[in-house]
Order: sequence, then structure tokens, then C-alpha cells
Amino acid sequence: MATITTIGFDADDTLWHNERVFRLTQDRLASLLAGYSEKNHLEERLLAAERRNVLHYGYGVKGFTLSMIETAIEVTDRNVPADVIAEILEAGRDMLRHPVEPLPRVEDTLEALKGNYRLVLITKGDLFDQERKVTASGLDVYFDAIEIVSEKDAGTYRTMFSRHGTGPEEAMMIGNSLKSDIVPALDAGAFGVHVPYDLTWALEEADEPRGADRFHRLDHIGKVPQLLARLG
Amino acid sequence: MATITTIGFDADDTLWHNERVFRLTQDRLASLLAGYSEKNHLEERLLAAERRNVLHYGYGVKGFTLSMIETAIEVTDRNVPADVIAEILEAGRDMLRHPVEPLPRVEDTLEALKGNYRLVLITKGDLFDQERKVTASGLDVYFDAIEIVSEKDAGTYRTMFSRHGTGPEEAMMIGNSLKSDIVPALDAGAFGVHVPYDLTWALEEADEPRGADRFHRLDHIGKVPQLLARLG
Repeated sequence: MATITTIGFDADDTLWHNERVFRLTQDRLASLLAGYSEKNHLEERLLAAERRNVLHYGYGVKGFTLSMIETAIEVTDRNVPADVIAEILEAGRDMLRHPVEPLPRVEDTLEALKGNYRLVLITKGDLFDQERKVTASGLDVYFDAIEIVSEKDAGTYRTMFSRHGTGPEEAMMIGNSLKSDIVPALDAGAFGVHVPYDLTWALEEADEPRGADRFHRLDHIGKVPQLLARLG
Repeated sequence: MATITTIGFDADDTLWHNERVFRLTQDRLASLLAGYSEKNHLEERLLAAERRNVLHYGYGVKGFTLSMIETAIEVTDRNVPADVIAEILEAGRDMLRHPVEPLPRVEDTLEALKGNYRLVLITKGDLFDQERKVTASGLDVYFDAIEIVSEKDAGTYRTMFSRHGTGPEEAMMIGNSLKSDIVPALDAGAFGVHVPYDLTWALEEADEPRGADRFHRLDHIGKVPQLLARLG
């Protein structure tokens, strides 16, 4: 038997599509630079740029756009035409305007949980863009609190579940990223429920937690109420 | 007589230099593009890009870097060499690494107020970069709460002064921007104390509030304790 009062939800690729938008934009970049670079090589150099730049830029579309531009300069040996840079800027802005639709079963699940638990959306990334997406999704009405943070570590979850609930021991975190959502939430003492998404950004990859009795995996978010009933 | 329990401080150009770093970077951009554009014309086009893009990018260095790149493409008639774009990326990253030193009298003032008031830092802009600056300044130890928001309007101040204090009526906001710090704080019912900085970004310009009895102007932040003694 466990007491759970508070449920944290990751947003990108847990409540709505996100990585897909990045992949489509990478395809667009590959077309733009097809005359200069093989797609595989381009993607490898882009990932290297993202890895390097996350320390300066943090997470989000603006930093990704800057990394795309940097990569275009690199793979063209400093010969990329200004027209291509203009197209990359446009691709970045398209990402920031992208419509946001809840993933299947998300709305029903939030509806079922609302009122019975404190629901907290905990997402990292760009403040401005994440706020836009929360509003555009229409899901803000289900949450008791929305927290946009620059990094998700165990300290983040301890703070969030204390601020908005009764502490991490009585909290559950749900998300698609083992690295950002599950492992640090387990480390904080919360339940960690992994709901995989079919694409994972290389910088979010992590090994599955071993021997953690508060770790669960569900094949879709609609199974959360059932899991809660089983644990409660 | 007024009861003031809570003091909000803006950060950029109130606690440390910020606009100066933007101006120096604009000078660097002007040198890079000297063969293509007069400085005045360049600055006018850059401001137009920032004004257009703030709706997509919000505030901060990453959006500014993207606007500089867009402007370089525009003023060169799509002929800007990739080397120049690479230099602009570097200029943006230099901004994100810039050392942060408190302005004169800031530390003494915070020291004098700490313990007697709830001190809240309220800044807008890029989450990741603003967090870096707060830490790098060493001023985080003086604040009871640090809030990084995407926009500063009357609603923001109402929420912040209720969350961290006893409501806007018993709060004072101190900052260099009439538009972001003073006018909306007055609208929320708080005191607004303008401490001008010698440079103001065109997008932050606003008229002085008229007939607002909670509006004050000080020529430096060191006069805040005196003002509080007079009001209290």
C-alpha cells in the first residue's frame, strides 16, 4: 500500500508530440544541405553541436536553431549560402509556431485524475516556448501547477513535490525520458512511471533503473489510473 | 504611513549591467558588417527584427543572436559570408559567458534590507541564462525567492507578491524599466520605484506614470532604505 497525493507529468512527448517536430526539421535541414553533406554525417555533426551547446544554450528550439546554423557552416566548410541560413531561421520559427495537440488518451487520463490528486506539469526547456505550448494544448486547465525548469535532477523533483504536494515520497512522476523524468524522480524518493515514446533524442538516452521497486513502465498513459488503483 | 512587507527587484540593469553587453555586441556586429551597411541603418534593421521576433522568441540572448543573423542576411542582400555568421554565433555565445558583477551599492542595499523584508528577484528573459546570471552574480543568497517569468504585466506582479508576500498592496517593485517594472507594478497596486540606468533598450521605453502616488524615482539603489523609512 502506498499513499500518493501528487502526480507530476512531463510535457514534451508525454502529453504532446515534440521529438517528431525536431526530426522533421532535421529532414528539412538535410534537404537544404543535400549538395554539401550526406544525411548521416550531417546528423552526427548536428548532434555534436547540440551536445556542445547545451551548456551555453540550455534546451529548446532557439538553441537548436543556432546549432543547425553552426552545423550548416561546418559541413559546408564555411561556404553555406545566406539563402540557406535564411531557410534555417524560417524552419526554427516554424517549430515555434507548430500546433500542439495532446497525444491519444492524455485528456481522458487527466480528466480521470483531476480532483483526486494534485497534478503538476513539470517540463524543462525554453520558458517562452513551453508556456506557448501549454496554452496551445488546452491542457493547462487540468493542472494545479505548471513548472518550467532549466534542468530536471533529483533536487528539482524534491523541490517541486514539496512545493506543490506532500513531498516526493507521496508523489509519482510520469514521463517518456528515463534520464530526465524517471531516474531523478526515483532518486528523489518518488514513484517513476515510464511511458515510452517512439522517438528519443540521443541526449535523453539512459539505462533502465535496476532494482528500483518504485519504477513502473506502462505502454500508454491511459493505464495510469489502473496503476494507481493497484498501488493505493 | 504604509506597510511594506515585500520588495521585488528587477535584475538586468537594476542589479547588474545588461544593456551595455547588448550595445557592445551591436558594435561588434557593426564592425563585422561595415563593408555592407552604415551603423545607423544596421541598428534600425536590427531593432525592427527584434520587434518582429519578440513574439516568436521572447526575450534574451538566443533570440537576439537569431535576430542579428537575420539582420546580417537582410542588410547584405542575402550575400553575408558564412564566416560572418560564424562570428555572430561566437558573439552570442560570448554574451552567454559574460561575467556578471553587481552594480555599485547593490550588495550593501540588499544586506541592509535582508531579514526586514521578503526580498524577491523578478526577472524576465531566458530561463537558462537568467539562472546563470543570478548564480554568477553571487546575489542569490540575499533573496527569499527568485522568479524568472516570460512577461512582466500587472497579473505577474499580483501573482508574485501574493505567492511570496502579503499581496501587492504591501509590496514595492524596484527596477530600471518603466514599462516592465514600474507601470505594471503600480497597476497591480504595489509601490513602483524607478532607478534609472543610463541605457534603455528601445522596446523598454515608456512614459513616466502620471499622478501615481505610489511612484517614486531614486537616482541610485542605495537610497531605497531611506525611502522605506520615510514611507513606513
